[in-house]
Amino acid sequence: MIPDYLSLDIPESDKPRLVIVGGGFAGLELARNLKNGPYQVVLFDRNNYHTFQPLLYQVATSGLEPDSIAGPLRKVFDGFRDFYFRMVKVESIDYQGKTINTPIGKLSYHFLVLACGSETNFFGLEEVKRKAFPLKKVVHALNLRSHILQNFEKAVLTADPLNHQRLMNLVIVGGGPTGVEVAGALGELKLHVLPRDFPDLDFSDMKVFLVEGESRLLGAMGVEAATNAKKYLEQYGTEVILDTVVTGYDGQTVFMNNHQSIESHTLIWAAGVHGNMVDGLPHLVVEKSRILVNEFNQVENVPSIFAIGDIALMKNQDAPKGHPMVAQVAIQQGRMLAKNLKAVLQGKSMQSFKYKDLGSMATVGRKKAVVEFPNGLKFGGFFAWLLWMFIHLISLIGFRNKLVTFVNWVWSYFTYDKGNRLIIRRFDKEKTSPVEAG
Amino acid sequence: MIPDYLSLDIPESDKPRLVIVGGGFAGLELARNLKNGPYQVVLFDRNNYHTFQPLLYQVATSGLEPDSIAGPLRKVFDGFRDFYFRMVKVESIDYQGKTINTPIGKLSYHFLVLACGSETNFFGLEEVKRKAFPLKKVVHALNLRSHILQNFEKAVLTADPLNHQRLMNLVIVGGGPTGVEVAGALGELKLHVLPRDFPDLDFSDMKVFLVEGESRLLGAMGVEAATNAKKYLEQYGTEVILDTVVTGYDGQTVFMNNHQSIESHTLIWAAGVHGNMVDGLPHLVVEKSRILVNEFNQVENVPSIFAIGDIALMKNQDAPKGHPMVAQVAIQQGRMLAKNLKAVLQGKSMQSFKYKDLGSMATVGRKKAVVEFPNGLKFGGFFAWLLWMFIHLISLIGFRNKLVTFVNWVWSYFTYDKGNRLIIRRFDKEKTSPVEAG
Repeated sequence: MIPDYLSLDIPESDKPRLVIVGGGFAGLELARNLKNGPYQVVLFDRNNYHTFQPLLYQVATSGLEPDSIAGPLRKVFDGFRDFYFRMVKVESIDYQGKTINTPIGKLSYHFLVLACGSETNFFGLEEVKRKAFPLKKVVHALNLRSHILQNFEKAVLTADPLNHQRLMNLVIVGGGPTGVEVAGALGELKLHVLPRDFPDLDFSDMKVFLVEGESRLLGAMGVEAATNAKKYLEQYGTEVILDTVVTGYDGQTVFMNNHQSIESHTLIWAAGVHGNMVDGLPHLVVEKSRILVNEFNQVENVPSIFAIGDIALMKNQDAPKGHPMVAQVAIQQGRMLAKNLKAVLQGKSMQSFKYKDLGSMATVGRKKAVVEFPNGLKFGGFFAWLLWMFIHLISLIGFRNKLVTFVNWVWSYFTYDKGNRLIIRRFDKEKTSPVEAG
Repeated sequence: MIPDYLSLDIPESDKPRLVIVGGGFAGLELARNLKNGPYQVVLFDRNNYHTFQPLLYQVATSGLEPDSIAGPLRKVFDGFRDFYFRMVKVESIDYQGKTINTPIGKLSYHFLVLACGSETNFFGLEEVKRKAFPLKKVVHALNLRSHILQNFEKAVLTADPLNHQRLMNLVIVGGGPTGVEVAGALGELKLHVLPRDFPDLDFSDMKVFLVEGESRLLGAMGVEAATNAKKYLEQYGTEVILDTVVTGYDGQTVFMNNHQSIESHTLIWAAGVHGNMVDGLPHLVVEKSRILVNEFNQVENVPSIFAIGDIALMKNQDAPKGHPMVAQVAIQQGRMLAKNLKAVLQGKSMQSFKYKDLGSMATVGRKKAVVEFPNGLKFGGFFAWLLWMFIHLISLIGFRNKLVTFVNWVWSYFTYDKGNRLIIRRFDKEKTSPVEAG
């Protein structure tokens, strides 16, 4: 219920108005680079915080609290002039009338930047969407954390073999960085934390399965990284199932295309994402839930609208199928677009976007990570893990978040503990559909 | 929905079975002092964590994250033998059959200790209960934090004077430590944090009201502390309304017995607590939602049942109306009962409980606190504030919680910032009744 006395209330300015939809990596970088610049900037987001998605899996597995990986957006924009943040959903665009529509009114723009990011792709599997756990938002991570811990509380209370097994089995779909990192973190919990918490459970009964459709993990990285990640996961007892696609899930049994099934109350869906589309764009510019853009991130034939980050599909020589949907692309596009939008007002021409690959990394657990640089340098193990932590730490928003995360990591390193184990939903109020929480 | 395959599953032991209901200050202290002792101990709690209630108000006002003030119970009991934690609600007691009833089965006991604590007392005001915000649980604090921040997001969006005022006004009922501390923390947010976050709001419009039925604040402390607390609050612009009782609240307007009213979307209810009663005790032993106990915390005429902490009502020469419902009483009763329960098995006689008052304290904000010792020593200001922080820090469960809280406090001290400002419920999914969240 949205009260009818609300309105967007953006004052007129003598600067042209730039509307940004989404405060993720792309939108945030763009807005920051336009600080007190030639535009009036209006940023829309449904949340009042930026989510550092690469560490969501640590929230889901009790390693970090959500406040450490999320940054209040208004704090980021402290000191910005002619800048307006609105915690409101943008429902649709009228690209001919150059306005956006929200539940509390319309707003006209001179330029519009769509940085809406992506959401979990369930590939049309409706029942899976209702029963599986996605991991793209803070609420998803919190819900998953509570669900996992609650299942062990229930496992203590059941002698029934089938239900016991369903409570102790966890299945992850998708062998990309998120899937590998969740699987690794669950392996660490199994090894170091859960047996001390639940002395009345036998953790050799706890099985973690990682199911991947391709013939190896970490498809975006090299074979060596994939082999190392699989080896690390198997050291934790994780069962890695390759060349296999999950075809269905009813909340109890995971069905796969190899005609086998796994009994589990927990299916974590990290199998893919698609663009978080906004209504109202011409059909021709949308391809597979992404928006076709030119080399300036400008929407084809709609020069007043740009798209950056996961939602943008820029096909060029470097990336004939578009760029990977990762934070680095989003950040670099946000930065370049800020330059280009300034150039436009000065009558200068825009520069083409060129993605600079800074390398890839994924961590499996303590002292277990894989790193690859574009120059061919690649390594795994302890130093890869240290580098992974360093890069993630400096990328977090705000000094307080860096500090609290650092304290948690140092604490975990020395104690093998993960301190954030609250179940904050009630035993008897459990939701059937975890997705609704988001 | 509780699945029917669950059962309590407590093994038989050659030790007598002690059942403890509640993992608050009293139950936790009792269980810790019986570690690997002469009893099989079964602890029931509806949550898997202990809540450090004195700092809940800091979670509600963005100062701390919930994981810092809550300790996972299973971690506390790491290494306990013949000890069982069950995250299950105890529904009722059969004191003649010496069993307790839960949704997943019965359990017999030799001794039962009720340490169920207290819950918010709305004094029969049903509409207030539905519309006001209590502050006794982690979920209450999180809900209140989101509600407060969401109201400012809405205030940005409304020019309507009445609704704007309702969004900017906050009313707290109850001038005890919780009410004073919440009011102070809101005063700090108003002074140091919110104006930077919301440059388009005029915070001279933000009014905090503290309504107290008696003629002064902090009734449990001396007149000097009360005067100082009021002075500190007024330095933040808080309006302290004494000798006044709130008689009703419809979610928009707070009605008082002085025939005046305050327009507000936020009523924080810290006006009192009553015992969190369990069904099944003889009527004669229950008085005003507390359980009458003798000097050994033993329930009158039911020698196998004890009650400790807020739920226990022990009337003696020192406390003719019973002890105050505070953490120190709960902790001391838990510790003494552990001794007495050991003594019973050795055929020794039990010792009477004597409350040792360690003093009282309350904080209003940075460098603003009041402290009183039983020997008459009392002081306020900077050193009282440092002492308050030190005492609360060392009382938190677990080293990680102490460390993260310390980091947050040091951070806040130097930056005047409060970092935990996420709204984790959605704009369009707001609950009418915040109480339901608990």
